[in-house]
Amino acid sequence: MSAFLMATWFRGLTATETLALTLAMRDSGDVLRLPDLGRPLVDKHSTGGVGDKVTLVLAPIVSALGLAMAKLSGRGLGHTGGTLDKLAAIPGYRVDLDPRQLIDQVRAVGVAVAAASQELAPADRRLYALRDATGTVNQSGLIAASIMSKKLAVETDALVLDVKVGDGAFFATRSEGEAFARAALAIGAGLGRQVRAVLTQMSRPLGKEVGNGREVAEAMDVLSGHGPRDVATVAVTLAANLVEMAGGSQAAGDGAKQAAATLGGGQAMEHFERWITAQGGQLGGLAARLRQPAQAEGRILADRSGFLASVSALKIGQAAALAGAGRSRKEDAVDPRAGITLVAELGQAVRSGETLARVHASDPDRLAQAQHLGASAFQVADGPPDDEPLLLGTLSQGGMNP
Amino acid sequence: MSAFLMATWFRGLTATETLALTLAMRDSGDVLRLPDLGRPLVDKHSTGGVGDKVTLVLAPIVSALGLAMAKLSGRGLGHTGGTLDKLAAIPGYRVDLDPRQLIDQVRAVGVAVAAASQELAPADRRLYALRDATGTVNQSGLIAASIMSKKLAVETDALVLDVKVGDGAFFATRSEGEAFARAALAIGAGLGRQVRAVLTQMSRPLGKEVGNGREVAEAMDVLSGHGPRDVATVAVTLAANLVEMAGGSQAAGDGAKQAAATLGGGQAMEHFERWITAQGGQLGGLAARLRQPAQAEGRILADRSGFLASVSALKIGQAAALAGAGRSRKEDAVDPRAGITLVAELGQAVRSGETLARVHASDPDRLAQAQHLGASAFQVADGPPDDEPLLLGTLSQGGMNP
Repeated sequence: MSAFLMATWFRGLTATETLALTLAMRDSGDVLRLPDLGRPLVDKHSTGGVGDKVTLVLAPIVSALGLAMAKLSGRGLGHTGGTLDKLAAIPGYRVDLDPRQLIDQVRAVGVAVAAASQELAPADRRLYALRDATGTVNQSGLIAASIMSKKLAVETDALVLDVKVGDGAFFATRSEGEAFARAALAIGAGLGRQVRAVLTQMSRPLGKEVGNGREVAEAMDVLSGHGPRDVATVAVTLAANLVEMAGGSQAAGDGAKQAAATLGGGQAMEHFERWITAQGGQLGGLAARLRQPAQAEGRILADRSGFLASVSALKIGQAAALAGAGRSRKEDAVDPRAGITLVAELGQAVRSGETLARVHASDPDRLAQAQHLGASAFQVADGPPDDEPLLLGTLSQGGMNP
Repeated sequence: MSAFLMATWFRGLTATETLALTLAMRDSGDVLRLPDLGRPLVDKHSTGGVGDKVTLVLAPIVSALGLAMAKLSGRGLGHTGGTLDKLAAIPGYRVDLDPRQLIDQVRAVGVAVAAASQELAPADRRLYALRDATGTVNQSGLIAASIMSKKLAVETDALVLDVKVGDGAFFATRSEGEAFARAALAIGAGLGRQVRAVLTQMSRPLGKEVGNGREVAEAMDVLSGHGPRDVATVAVTLAANLVEMAGGSQAAGDGAKQAAATLGGGQAMEHFERWITAQGGQLGGLAARLRQPAQAEGRILADRSGFLASVSALKIGQAAALAGAGRSRKEDAVDPRAGITLVAELGQAVRSGETLARVHASDPDRLAQAQHLGASAFQVADGPPDDEPLLLGTLSQGGMNP
């Protein structure tokens, strides 16, 4: 398999080969066929970003719109967080559901997000370990097969991929992200499954909170109709695509309007609360609890006056991980309170000594390391930066829309 | 390592990389430093051919010329034979010598040919198994590193490589053989070791006997000054190169004359007998014994009249292996009496029904299979074939001589 991976690195995979590999990987484990739920079942996958709490907003939106979402997620590794780590910051939340519990919960409240079992595409874990050891992780066909083998192991009606592009993402460039998206969509097309990919900016963090508990709190802000616009925009865009795919022939744009309305109207928050409660999470005083200070608190200050020209998602992600929010090895624990809160807005005028970010760390050593690395994430320049768009395009099985 | 092999397949190895790999492989096991023997110690390696009994002739020649040869050999696999299998056809011959016995014998009689121990470049065996499993066997740098790591594990003063080229050889084309030879010589140059490569024809078998015992008998014919010219020519050419390398500044051509003289004058046979006796082999009636009939004897006949235009070394090798002379798995035993004797000479006029070859097989089933495949090795045409040269060139560290 190592030799196969290396050959693939140099020779690539055709669409047919990628599909065959994906199916072989899917069929290395269990395939979960959910019984008819009376509404379309949808799924979402993000290729991983910094501050990416979109699932926490998206799942309640689509549930409020009459779809069901059963999502199997993973833990974070390296500088990007994992949805399970964020949910685990909610007291009482059970990440482990067996298939029966998952189905019952989706039927009852429309959403379940749980840990992927060891029986789901086990070949992927083995192959990933070999890709890691052989330096062949970043190959579009292998990435597509890895993600799609797991996504296809749960039979859903529509899947949307949030393909992050930028220094904080797995794909540093748009063309890498597109290559992956095309490979993934070809797999979907080969199986007659509806798949779309939305390419989104990850040169800067998404939202203002990075760190497991604080990201849940920020998602709750968004679900309440406030909170950062970028998080809401990505969630609404993904929801619109799912609605359009699963709902059939809706007029373009209708999905987005409906999705945005669930944030303003409180329905999304209502679905969030039902979901979290059903899965054991305790809502009482939750937002405040999630924003409690960490063991060691500090700040990152501007070292000159000017305009905040860039905030590196990669470095913020790495600094948050150093603070205690991430893990470098699978076995490591994460601190739900650790992370970074961005205070200054990208593009705003700042004065030397002004607070750019707050750092929440597990101990003073981690605080110092996170502050040091985090400071390098910020660039203050003489003029405001060019606006980099958040949404970079949507790839559907019909082609790319800008 | 599998991934490394596959990357090498697609990207190749530079001379520096090949040298580093070779040394790492050599140093995975023991390195045998022979004490001063009072005469230069030389070695030879053939990339494998059909009817290749050259070591059995060469070792006595170089010994008669005042050099010493300590050679560690392997068993045959597939359609090419191995020197150890040929020597094992001699009653009493001990293929297993420990380093002490090897040194004592070389000191006493000038020659020892024994089985390579498991401690000699063990990384090569592991890598070869992976190359075999990953389809990366035929890569010139890997081949050179494999061969040279074992050859460098015994410290000799000069090494000559017999690089076989043709359908019965590992290298089908001259350019493949040259690529390997250049890589091997670069390794030698990198270590300050004298190495030359002689490219020789292997589109047809060497000599007239293919099969372990019969090849020893044919080598004894050559050592007696008769026997097939091609075998003598290759042995004398290799010997001349060793003498020129190990003996210093001899005039070109002198080595070949001296080597040929040992065959006519009986000195080579004398050294052969001393060597075989020292290693436990029984010489009494040996030649006749080695040519005893096998269990099942048969013939291959010309199916038309004309000129014998080609004799495929590959097919003769495969047919001999089917007859019982070779093995397809390492664990298999070989029949020392099995093989093929070529009766008709390449280029000679033959009549329909005339005997082209005799087949000596371990049983009637094997006989039938060997006859069937062996018959396809012969092509009879309307006119005599073009002469294909036996010697294709010598590559020394100074460059290629035609």
